[in-house]
Amino acid sequence: MKEIFTKEFRIFFGEDVLEQLAENLIENAYSKVFVLMDENTEKHCWPMLKPYLVDTFPIRIQSGEASKTIQTVQQVWTALQENFADRHALLINLGGGVLSDLGGFAAATYKRGIHFMNIPTTLLAMVDAAVGGKQGIDLDGHKNAVGVFKHPQEIFIYPAFLNTLPDVERRNGFAELSKHGLIKDSDFWLELVKTDEKKAENLDKLIYKSIKIKAAIVSKDPLEEGIRKSLNFGHTIGHAFETHSLIHDEKPLKHGEAVVIGMIAEAWLSKNLGWISEKELHAIKNYFLSRFPKYSAQPDFETLLVYMRNDKKNRNGQINFSLLKKIGKAKIDVNCSEEEIQHAIAFYYS
Amino acid sequence: MKEIFTKEFRIFFGEDVLEQLAENLIENAYSKVFVLMDENTEKHCWPMLKPYLVDTFPIRIQSGEASKTIQTVQQVWTALQENFADRHALLINLGGGVLSDLGGFAAATYKRGIHFMNIPTTLLAMVDAAVGGKQGIDLDGHKNAVGVFKHPQEIFIYPAFLNTLPDVERRNGFAELSKHGLIKDSDFWLELVKTDEKKAENLDKLIYKSIKIKAAIVSKDPLEEGIRKSLNFGHTIGHAFETHSLIHDEKPLKHGEAVVIGMIAEAWLSKNLGWISEKELHAIKNYFLSRFPKYSAQPDFETLLVYMRNDKKNRNGQINFSLLKKIGKAKIDVNCSEEEIQHAIAFYYS
Repeated sequence: MKEIFTKEFRIFFGEDVLEQLAENLIENAYSKVFVLMDENTEKHCWPMLKPYLVDTFPIRIQSGEASKTIQTVQQVWTALQENFADRHALLINLGGGVLSDLGGFAAATYKRGIHFMNIPTTLLAMVDAAVGGKQGIDLDGHKNAVGVFKHPQEIFIYPAFLNTLPDVERRNGFAELSKHGLIKDSDFWLELVKTDEKKAENLDKLIYKSIKIKAAIVSKDPLEEGIRKSLNFGHTIGHAFETHSLIHDEKPLKHGEAVVIGMIAEAWLSKNLGWISEKELHAIKNYFLSRFPKYSAQPDFETLLVYMRNDKKNRNGQINFSLLKKIGKAKIDVNCSEEEIQHAIAFYYS
Repeated sequence: MKEIFTKEFRIFFGEDVLEQLAENLIENAYSKVFVLMDENTEKHCWPMLKPYLVDTFPIRIQSGEASKTIQTVQQVWTALQENFADRHALLINLGGGVLSDLGGFAAATYKRGIHFMNIPTTLLAMVDAAVGGKQGIDLDGHKNAVGVFKHPQEIFIYPAFLNTLPDVERRNGFAELSKHGLIKDSDFWLELVKTDEKKAENLDKLIYKSIKIKAAIVSKDPLEEGIRKSLNFGHTIGHAFETHSLIHDEKPLKHGEAVVIGMIAEAWLSKNLGWISEKELHAIKNYFLSRFPKYSAQPDFETLLVYMRNDKKNRNGQINFSLLKKIGKAKIDVNCSEEEIQHAIAFYYS
């Protein structure tokens, strides 16, 4: 088992983390332990986790981004209250990013905050959502418009859960994993380009490196006042596509799929500023398009702009980007014109 | 103007605080300034505040404890979002405790937290809710079951707002103001017993002293891990009555009125433990009953127990009290038996 400890949280990584969880629970003496799950993790992951726990109260919610609302949070609060959860209760989030964002928010606000732990069950949640302390929900279709900063006490990364996932979910996480190379570690990026991530052994190694990068960034800047903004590469345009798709598509884009569109377009913005080369731009585009099918819908640009203007990252109505200063290094707080943004999106579709 | 500054927040007190607010807003350069108000503060207080502000966006909610729900918070979030409030926007809470608790929670969770300031307009909010960083709402009738700890940046106490209040509201605040003497400052308590608080000049002085006591306690223990629990004197039994009344009474008990019932009953528990004398117990009862009419309903004891058992302050199902070790000193984390609690409530009605 590997461990990544920071001042604010502890990450356990490996095939024996469930034993570790069981030990930690005994040490902590929580008054009650609740496990939040959705119908997928109840079916595929809960049976693997359950043997390690005693006297837990399961809380079930519906999977999917459409459930990431205050109404679902209210269900969780009510379930906690009806089962007399006090301030010393624990909530374990067993699921992907939607579930852990929502569960983290519910825990951080129930009785002004109870402890919670994350057991991410998707690749995306392992490398992104479960680590970093951003808890939240969507509001009227706006992604993560409501939330708090609060770290889970502990995070348990159990790679065996990945075997329960369909391919589309593995791909989804691979977008954020790749982003960590692009913004912070050019060697890791080069390794990614060369590696066949379909081999489980390779994937485990890549996940661990990716989490280390994110944990280091988050730990330096927990409230996203500076360097942490570099994690937003691909997310300004990506979130706009994701919001659009959630409203219009029967089978909406996954977060990672939307961020891939954003990263390709925002790589164009980086090249346009002279920061990365034409060759690097095309390498990025090819890397992602060989793994992610191109998005067939072409959202109206003005609508995308409305979503971008309402992005949390903005200040004074300017649309704010985190771009690539070079491969392995991000540049935060960059403003781009509407015309440039339109070009960047056209590059994705070209 | 008087000032009380702590590490976490700044309180301005006096007749010229609105000028100070105007200055502070200019210094801070918020992207947008929103003012949360209810129909009462819109009518009585907003006209006094408005001349000091430029370019503000009013948000209106319904007054009263029944509005202190997640649905009302959602209205506030949506109003902020529809007016493109970004992370650098400010919310000013102009109102009593319900409004500032709710507005503080909405601000602390909108885009993972924007700044907020409190301008309390009731005596209760001035001496209690507006100071202390406890933000929250009720859940299925359970008081403050959901919330966060977060301080407003600044608090402006403008005593002239008290002239807009009916007598019942002044009395409501007087309960918490008196509590600060009982738990922390016996001289202040003796002064209270002697003072005619109906004279505005006397009242201003008492408010200032009361806020100073609360700010000092909160500042020492922001997360209520120790000494801050002393502020819960009267609140274990008080909250149970308040919850009951909110559900059953057409004209529910005010928070202060409920806490008065709680303080008289919990003073009996303190005397029962030999910590205060029979004479002090009766002095407390007489002090409050000469100012607050006795509650005419007699709630079923088992129902009150259910509310007490679900109190945030509990641990492992034990009902937790903060009692009086002596006049001017509290003792936290005291457990009492159901029989004692029943006696204590009977003493209130005797």
